[in-house]
Amino acid sequence: MGSLWVPVILNGPGRVGTKFVHLLWDKAPYIEARTGIRPVLVAVVDADRSLFSPDGLTPEDIDRWKRDDGQASGPSFPDILDTMADVGPVPYLPGIVVEATPTDLATGEPGLGHITRALWRGFSVITLAKGPLVVAFQQLRALAADTGASLRYSGAAAAALPTVDTALYSMAGADIVEIEGVLNGTTNYVLNSMAQGMDYDEALTEAQEMGVAEADPTLDVQGFDSAAKLLILANTIWGVDLCLRDVTRQGITQIQKETVVRHARKGTPVRLLARATRDDREGGAIQMTVRPEPVPAGHPFVNLPGTQKAVRYLSRQMGEITIMGGAGDVAGAAAAALKDLIHILDEMKLRIGI
Amino acid sequence: MGSLWVPVILNGPGRVGTKFVHLLWDKAPYIEARTGIRPVLVAVVDADRSLFSPDGLTPEDIDRWKRDDGQASGPSFPDILDTMADVGPVPYLPGIVVEATPTDLATGEPGLGHITRALWRGFSVITLAKGPLVVAFQQLRALAADTGASLRYSGAAAAALPTVDTALYSMAGADIVEIEGVLNGTTNYVLNSMAQGMDYDEALTEAQEMGVAEADPTLDVQGFDSAAKLLILANTIWGVDLCLRDVTRQGITQIQKETVVRHARKGTPVRLLARATRDDREGGAIQMTVRPEPVPAGHPFVNLPGTQKAVRYLSRQMGEITIMGGAGDVAGAAAAALKDLIHILDEMKLRIGI
Repeated sequence: MGSLWVPVILNGPGRVGTKFVHLLWDKAPYIEARTGIRPVLVAVVDADRSLFSPDGLTPEDIDRWKRDDGQASGPSFPDILDTMADVGPVPYLPGIVVEATPTDLATGEPGLGHITRALWRGFSVITLAKGPLVVAFQQLRALAADTGASLRYSGAAAAALPTVDTALYSMAGADIVEIEGVLNGTTNYVLNSMAQGMDYDEALTEAQEMGVAEADPTLDVQGFDSAAKLLILANTIWGVDLCLRDVTRQGITQIQKETVVRHARKGTPVRLLARATRDDREGGAIQMTVRPEPVPAGHPFVNLPGTQKAVRYLSRQMGEITIMGGAGDVAGAAAAALKDLIHILDEMKLRIGI
Repeated sequence: MGSLWVPVILNGPGRVGTKFVHLLWDKAPYIEARTGIRPVLVAVVDADRSLFSPDGLTPEDIDRWKRDDGQASGPSFPDILDTMADVGPVPYLPGIVVEATPTDLATGEPGLGHITRALWRGFSVITLAKGPLVVAFQQLRALAADTGASLRYSGAAAAALPTVDTALYSMAGADIVEIEGVLNGTTNYVLNSMAQGMDYDEALTEAQEMGVAEADPTLDVQGFDSAAKLLILANTIWGVDLCLRDVTRQGITQIQKETVVRHARKGTPVRLLARATRDDREGGAIQMTVRPEPVPAGHPFVNLPGTQKAVRYLSRQMGEITIMGGAGDVAGAAAAALKDLIHILDEMKLRIGI
């Protein structure tokens, strides 16, 4: 490889991770043209094995390795980071770790350990796992700042819906005083089905059959997933260090079909609303709630069919800005992670002055 | 001034320009904390006079100067740029010109001359004027690329509604295949009033009385403003070099009240829709239209009260993303220009490694 390149390591080759590998492969020429830096996937790491090639892996390599359980075991994580330190031809282009392991909102593991070790070594991190951010957001941010690495997590905060980018970039300089979102696609789908007359159990079963809800839907229907995303946004936007217990949370399991139908007919549909408000004074108190609520007529969340998500920011200087849509979870989350990678390389380009 | 600072020059101290001056003053400490660089307004330039101080101007200085026609005439534009070249203590922190002169969609002047001269001297430019972008977008981009300057124009493309940032940043790496927008607040206001039973003339007069429509509403009601914004977005997103004549344009002056009322009652309100589509093949043909159309039921543009604007991008990798809202024109445009300034300084910080 003659030109500048940056090694990419994927932790967790599940559905999103694998989709990311394909997207990265397709878009690598575009990214190199845009930034002058070629991202090269050099390793994929699973719980107990890895596939490693300093010359780069193709999507076919990974598909083959996933099918064949025994083949090609490379270094485990984080040893692979030390291996990489010897491989890169340009020492000032540190690598990128993409964290796509299953999320654990209580301990943040295994992602938290992975991310800490990666940042510690100066690798930038793109995490699709929410757990590490829920458990240790400000510590991870501080660690990244110390080592000059980048920590990005668009895919952990509502996938392709650009919740983080809109707040931090599109609204730069505006003081956001309220965050309101429909941040979980599964519960929105269930509530939309109930609005058309289905019972909760029936709607959930249908969602599971369609792959919209997981076999164990607890995190979604009890509002933990929405609360985690809201927490990530509040900590990001306001620079605070709140935790999941600070979110007053109520899921959709207790809501009556009749209530949902009645509100839908009135044009004020019930949504699982995640809301964070900040007291007007500087450093003021922050309230965070997740609960099912009817949306007032004329509100931009009235019309959110299927699994659609949305977020609405209320700011002093720019007024209200609402974003809605974004591709569903696997493809959208992978595209969000690829966007994060592009932003890291955009910044790297500026830093090294190419 | 001990720390790093960057000189800012404002061309056109009208309502938006003056609002920008106040916002910049309020946010300068925040910007310095964020980027390590302090933006200092050193000059305000009007058609035939200017106010200049290398030590920085306060909003009060400018308000006083605006009230007193004869006072304090400094260098004119572009001579003031040469003056600045001798003032800045750090030669590698080139200045920023904010272009807020009234727009002329036919010639792009006077903004086009200002921007060309500023970029030529290595100044970065934030333009709120659409004219220069409509007339010479790719030439200005190329000039900026040649001199390493930045050219930003959020405030010229629907004010606080982050049309450009969402496409280029929040959707980085996604292939956008369709742009659809309600990009003009005045016409949306008039159509919303007509939907409630007002005649066109009555609705327009009311809009003028409320300051929503200008005394000469031609650019808005004949669709030129929407067409200009659509053109700017299409040229930005697809890297093409189309011109205003390439937009098939129809305003709202001919539409019947009965048509508007009928569609509103059906839940498919008439909006002045701006739409650009790109043929699926690489380098495929681009179609751009602006015309009043009923919005299908369930579309995110159904509910856009008052002067509210929205844009919807359809992409391959991220699906559909819609943004709506954003503060109305003067405050929102000024906040958008301030955001552009923050982005320029964010990049400068990375370039100079502070």
